[in-house]
Amino acid sequence: MFDTPTRSSVGWFFLYGLIVRQVSRVSALASRTMSFSFEIEATAGAARAGVFSTPHGDVKTPAFMPVGTLATVKSLDPDDLVQMGASMILGNAYHLHLRPGDEIVREMGGLHQFMRWEGPILTDSGGFQVFSLAQLRTLSEKGVEFQSHLDGSRRFFTPELVMQIERNIGADVIMQFDHVIPGQSDEPTARDASERSIRWLARCLAELKRLELSQPLEEPREEFPGDNPRNHQALFPIVQGGIHAPLRRQAAQAIRAMNDWAGFGIGGLSVGEEKDAMYEMIEVVEEALPPTHPRYLMGVGFPEDLVEAIRRGVDLFDCVAPTRMGRNGTVFTRDGRLNIKRTEYRTDPRPLDPDCDCAACTRFTRAYIRHLFVSDEILGLRLLSLHNVHFLLSLARNARLAIQTGDLDAWARDWLARYRTASPLTV
Amino acid sequence: MFDTPTRSSVGWFFLYGLIVRQVSRVSALASRTMSFSFEIEATAGAARAGVFSTPHGDVKTPAFMPVGTLATVKSLDPDDLVQMGASMILGNAYHLHLRPGDEIVREMGGLHQFMRWEGPILTDSGGFQVFSLAQLRTLSEKGVEFQSHLDGSRRFFTPELVMQIERNIGADVIMQFDHVIPGQSDEPTARDASERSIRWLARCLAELKRLELSQPLEEPREEFPGDNPRNHQALFPIVQGGIHAPLRRQAAQAIRAMNDWAGFGIGGLSVGEEKDAMYEMIEVVEEALPPTHPRYLMGVGFPEDLVEAIRRGVDLFDCVAPTRMGRNGTVFTRDGRLNIKRTEYRTDPRPLDPDCDCAACTRFTRAYIRHLFVSDEILGLRLLSLHNVHFLLSLARNARLAIQTGDLDAWARDWLARYRTASPLTV
Repeated sequence: MFDTPTRSSVGWFFLYGLIVRQVSRVSALASRTMSFSFEIEATAGAARAGVFSTPHGDVKTPAFMPVGTLATVKSLDPDDLVQMGASMILGNAYHLHLRPGDEIVREMGGLHQFMRWEGPILTDSGGFQVFSLAQLRTLSEKGVEFQSHLDGSRRFFTPELVMQIERNIGADVIMQFDHVIPGQSDEPTARDASERSIRWLARCLAELKRLELSQPLEEPREEFPGDNPRNHQALFPIVQGGIHAPLRRQAAQAIRAMNDWAGFGIGGLSVGEEKDAMYEMIEVVEEALPPTHPRYLMGVGFPEDLVEAIRRGVDLFDCVAPTRMGRNGTVFTRDGRLNIKRTEYRTDPRPLDPDCDCAACTRFTRAYIRHLFVSDEILGLRLLSLHNVHFLLSLARNARLAIQTGDLDAWARDWLARYRTASPLTV
Repeated sequence: MFDTPTRSSVGWFFLYGLIVRQVSRVSALASRTMSFSFEIEATAGAARAGVFSTPHGDVKTPAFMPVGTLATVKSLDPDDLVQMGASMILGNAYHLHLRPGDEIVREMGGLHQFMRWEGPILTDSGGFQVFSLAQLRTLSEKGVEFQSHLDGSRRFFTPELVMQIERNIGADVIMQFDHVIPGQSDEPTARDASERSIRWLARCLAELKRLELSQPLEEPREEFPGDNPRNHQALFPIVQGGIHAPLRRQAAQAIRAMNDWAGFGIGGLSVGEEKDAMYEMIEVVEEALPPTHPRYLMGVGFPEDLVEAIRRGVDLFDCVAPTRMGRNGTVFTRDGRLNIKRTEYRTDPRPLDPDCDCAACTRFTRAYIRHLFVSDEILGLRLLSLHNVHFLLSLARNARLAIQTGDLDAWARDWLARYRTASPLTV
């Protein structure tokens, strides 16, 4: 007789314990999402000078985020990035899933530990790579089947798998898996992709919640001291809609209704559409998003795009241009771009950009860096990447200052006029 | 009547003025060679702990000199070298003559200014490159005609031209142009090359004296503040003689009789001969050279060779192995070499060498660096080069300490035993 009620009591207590534990986890999660915040210090028209706080530190916005595709910002050392004042960097879920594998990144303590980057990290979901880099893809509502660009192996990305990958990688901000289309796609194509991206967003959110609840908190391992970031992740939705203003507005509205997000991505721009169309879409989305949250314009920028988009209320940027173009010899300067391989720089004693205080410009001449390039020396790649990344970081910092001092319009006008004086080189 | 004596007086005064100027130049040159000195602080058998002073600073010996072939130690930043305690580095006259051209280096203020290296520099004469790298060479007493390995263009190196090139480059220590032969050459071949090298040395010395007198002192240009080093150069002779002890002794004797040199190069070793033959030749040359002057074993090298040669009285070393092998994935460790590309390091949380305090080992895991290598990331090349160069610098520093504390023999025995425990990998 005693047995039954006792068992029953044990059962109830066990169930009660489970509930309490889950509730406390949920409230812990809620408090963790509080570890993301955005404070606006000053505005100038649509532009804002803000501070985006993450579990790995603050990002003063507007900010440019250098791209560390494969757990390294190509050719740079983490110390270089610290020295030039980078605060938040990117990783790519697609690339890290293929190499070294997101489970290895997790095993090594997460991406921060793996690449020794103590500041905030954001991971792109692979949406862009699946549609631009992978081969033979087959799209369905469930996800995208594709061949790895490395070895041709078959892969199948779903919103759920991408959340698992991004959770393994452990960035602070993780982007949703989205359906990316060419920049000049027509309305039906753009609508289809945008609506699918929104349905996939809902699945991403559900999967992330499931992962947060089902995966116990991991204690930092002894050999990897420090914070384990995988339990402090903010999922960013991505506003799609191509170059069609109504679609952009509808997407923003649907996304806002779904959840209280920590910030918003603006996707599908700078993918082949006209510049004017891009600027117009930024304006449309700016009006449709809450003014209180950070906005991240994905894959943008070129220096002139940063200036134009900051004026239109964008807070965060990323682009491979500074490192990729740097490796091709293209240098950003206040007076436009130059290509260091040209013969005219053979004995040029000036720095890459006389107005720059980066670790390349304060030490080396154009003549020396040209020599490194012509001789295929690795230091040349590093110095140009370093300069170009510094150029964009510094540009965003200067824009921030102009917002704070109320001079943004004049600053932007002067900056663009000087930058555009020189005819841009084809790169 | 007045005209003639006056003219004559003017002529004599002019001539007198010229003589005074030349004499003061010669005495200035004499004082400048005084700016090279070698002080021995401690000895242990043949080994010495010394300080080699140059116009660009002191080198604590024994010392390893990283090789900056083309005005850059491949994949490293000058700041990396400073941070790891490198004091003297190398440049290659052959390579710099071809790219960017020694006259351009001169125009840019000399190699120190060009590559922003404030410490001492030594340039190799191109003797080794002409015989190992260039194609279709024709040797005559006058010099060597060869085809550039870059574009096949015909070039003709003479001892005189090489002095002009090394003077344009402006290193502190400049090596003579010599005739380099394979390590296992027979006695007649080795004798021919050694004797030619000695005749070429006399021509190098004469040409350098001519250049010092004929080229006026150059004032540092405004855009290149700092020392102009081209008037403070020490020519080092190179003791050749292959693996033939009598030839080595004769070469050392003839060279010593020719001039009061600031130091001596030991050439033609580590070029294919047996290790034992190399060590024997070092011993022979050590006995034949004055104990008061620094000895530089050219192109050597590997960690075990450094230890063996330091015990035999060598003070200076250089080798491309740490950077070249680093770029292939080979890592020097206290327990022998390892190749970072192997699968076993995929999730290895240890640093490359747990006993190392370089900027790679204090930050990154083997797993991360392996990932960088497998992914062809430039940072991987830099980190391995950095570690390997640091390894040799640190090895020479530890040997110096052992000489000073009188423990060299025990230290060397223990060091070699541990290093050789692991079977060396083929690289």
